[in-house]
Amino acid sequence: MNTPREFEHGGNVYAAARLTGAALGDLLDYSANINPLGLSPAVRAAVQAALDSVVHYPDAAASALKTAIGKRYGVDPALVTCGNGAAELLYVLCQVRRPRRVLLAAPTFSEYERAARAAGAAVEYFPLPEEDGFGLDPEAFAARLAGVDLAFLCNPNNPTGGLLSRAAVETVAAAAARRGAWVVVDESFLDFLPAAADYTCRPLLGAYSNLIVLQSLTKFYAVPGLRLGFLLADRAVGDSLDRAKDPWNVNTLAQAAGVAALADDAYREASVAAVAAARGELASGLAALPGVRPFPACANFILARLATTTAPALRQAMLRDGILIRDCGNYPGLSPAYIRLAVKLPAQNAVLLAALAKNLKGGTP
Amino acid sequence: MNTPREFEHGGNVYAAARLTGAALGDLLDYSANINPLGLSPAVRAAVQAALDSVVHYPDAAASALKTAIGKRYGVDPALVTCGNGAAELLYVLCQVRRPRRVLLAAPTFSEYERAARAAGAAVEYFPLPEEDGFGLDPEAFAARLAGVDLAFLCNPNNPTGGLLSRAAVETVAAAAARRGAWVVVDESFLDFLPAAADYTCRPLLGAYSNLIVLQSLTKFYAVPGLRLGFLLADRAVGDSLDRAKDPWNVNTLAQAAGVAALADDAYREASVAAVAAARGELASGLAALPGVRPFPACANFILARLATTTAPALRQAMLRDGILIRDCGNYPGLSPAYIRLAVKLPAQNAVLLAALAKNLKGGTP
Repeated sequence: MNTPREFEHGGNVYAAARLTGAALGDLLDYSANINPLGLSPAVRAAVQAALDSVVHYPDAAASALKTAIGKRYGVDPALVTCGNGAAELLYVLCQVRRPRRVLLAAPTFSEYERAARAAGAAVEYFPLPEEDGFGLDPEAFAARLAGVDLAFLCNPNNPTGGLLSRAAVETVAAAAARRGAWVVVDESFLDFLPAAADYTCRPLLGAYSNLIVLQSLTKFYAVPGLRLGFLLADRAVGDSLDRAKDPWNVNTLAQAAGVAALADDAYREASVAAVAAARGELASGLAALPGVRPFPACANFILARLATTTAPALRQAMLRDGILIRDCGNYPGLSPAYIRLAVKLPAQNAVLLAALAKNLKGGTP
Repeated sequence: MNTPREFEHGGNVYAAARLTGAALGDLLDYSANINPLGLSPAVRAAVQAALDSVVHYPDAAASALKTAIGKRYGVDPALVTCGNGAAELLYVLCQVRRPRRVLLAAPTFSEYERAARAAGAAVEYFPLPEEDGFGLDPEAFAARLAGVDLAFLCNPNNPTGGLLSRAAVETVAAAAARRGAWVVVDESFLDFLPAAADYTCRPLLGAYSNLIVLQSLTKFYAVPGLRLGFLLADRAVGDSLDRAKDPWNVNTLAQAAGVAALADDAYREASVAAVAAARGELASGLAALPGVRPFPACANFILARLATTTAPALRQAMLRDGILIRDCGNYPGLSPAYIRLAVKLPAQNAVLLAALAKNLKGGTP
């Protein structure tokens, strides 16, 4: 269970472009879960306006960004630690905590495992059963916490789409507190849900000093190339993270983009509505394809099981059509029968569905 | 010697703006050592052109950037590890190596010490004597390597400007190799020297697998806000660094900026010439001020000793005039009698010298 594994991600458009000779703009990327509305005009303008400031070091205190995060999410800016993407914070957190044993769901986002192993931890999987729609039983998860220093929850879970109630996360956080373990709940896709406010665990922070709420801003605001994420945690945890990372980790343009993005209510509302509508349509379209079983989805991605071909074969075929899809075969807990697809705009989803129909017909079981 | 210390840096224009109420553009920043020619048109154009690509993840392989670094510096791109600034690589390197004892000069760039302490190391200072112009004796440094896992050299040294020959660094690298220690030589300011090619230790990499050549690209190319640095090391070291950091650490715009910057021969030549001329003029101007003793400089910054006032007092007075200078009192090995000044363009340097003259007259010993 602790042997090194391949950590390959979706969204590697540069590798796909090198492989196929296609221009970046000619690829349709369904392998990364990025807001299909793309860069908002306000964010683009903020980045443009900040361009002259790159001759200075970034604000090491990330003062304006922390204020914007605090205002948007109703939290004390002093609880915010900003990261060069949420991924960087995973690595710094694991280096600070140096856990011996880490518990995480299988399947879930693979960077939790990679960051834990980089810090020397042994990783234990909590299997999510397909027959239950990959749901996570919080009581059973909590019962596995003995001897664990650090546990990860992803809510909603990438790649399954499984959603945990706040009470479920609290069950885990409370059990972890009794055992001296930290719990990271990753809410990077939560903003895509109309009911995000009912699910976020930010209101639990005051009660559980062992709880860390992690959030990428790059998926919802479509800026993965800029790198921007943050976490909310007890100040003692935040101070230890600040000491363990370089002071200028969040670049100037990402800070400016974040400030503009978090104030952009119109973009946020349009995104939630567009993704909800497109998700329903795409799920129906997938269910209508022979040999494809989509799982219930709540964010901007859909997990699906293939019955008549394999994910690697379908991925290759789709790539020849300029479409990237996520082969989920390297997720612990998933076989090469699973793919993950982003939710894009209706016109793009129609192209995807047509290409899937064509390539599934040509596929061999 | 291992008590926590304040790590405060120059270049904190955002903090200065908050403190004084001045606009960022109204501050004259002599506290950070950034190329006074500013953002080159080619780099600006490359960042603009890459803006649409921020909706994708950065190229995790940093393929084009590594190729550009290899071409510019005559090294195998496979030896390159790219960083979110050189500072990030210091932290990742220390986490990978987990040194028990680290040796570094006093005074030198403070992030070596901060990164080492973050990884749990004990830090030992190798004092540079002012009476020798803060020169570093390589034989004496090598003799201190017993029991040391990791040593840092900064060449030219920030903040003293001291320069080591390649033979001097080789003396240290060879002694460290015999003792199983790694040596990091930080060449972040070397490109400012007309004779950089004679001093760089890149040609030693093949002979010393314990040698790591670190380089920031943000000082010479005036992009500290974008974050961009790299190191050259044995592939085994590079592989261990890749495992210990998140895959997308270098953002898309920094990668694009680096590719454009490294191909910009005209900017490079103009920068070296402009800084050399301005440095001579500024040093003469400083030497002519009563109570200021500048030390010999070779890059884009000058260390100076004050005789009639203190660095904190002068810093406060200069800040009231909208000019930031570096108070070097928090460098181990330097007293509050030292300041560091960047080398800017002649018109800016005239403003600096006039303000210094005014404030030194008003200063109390």
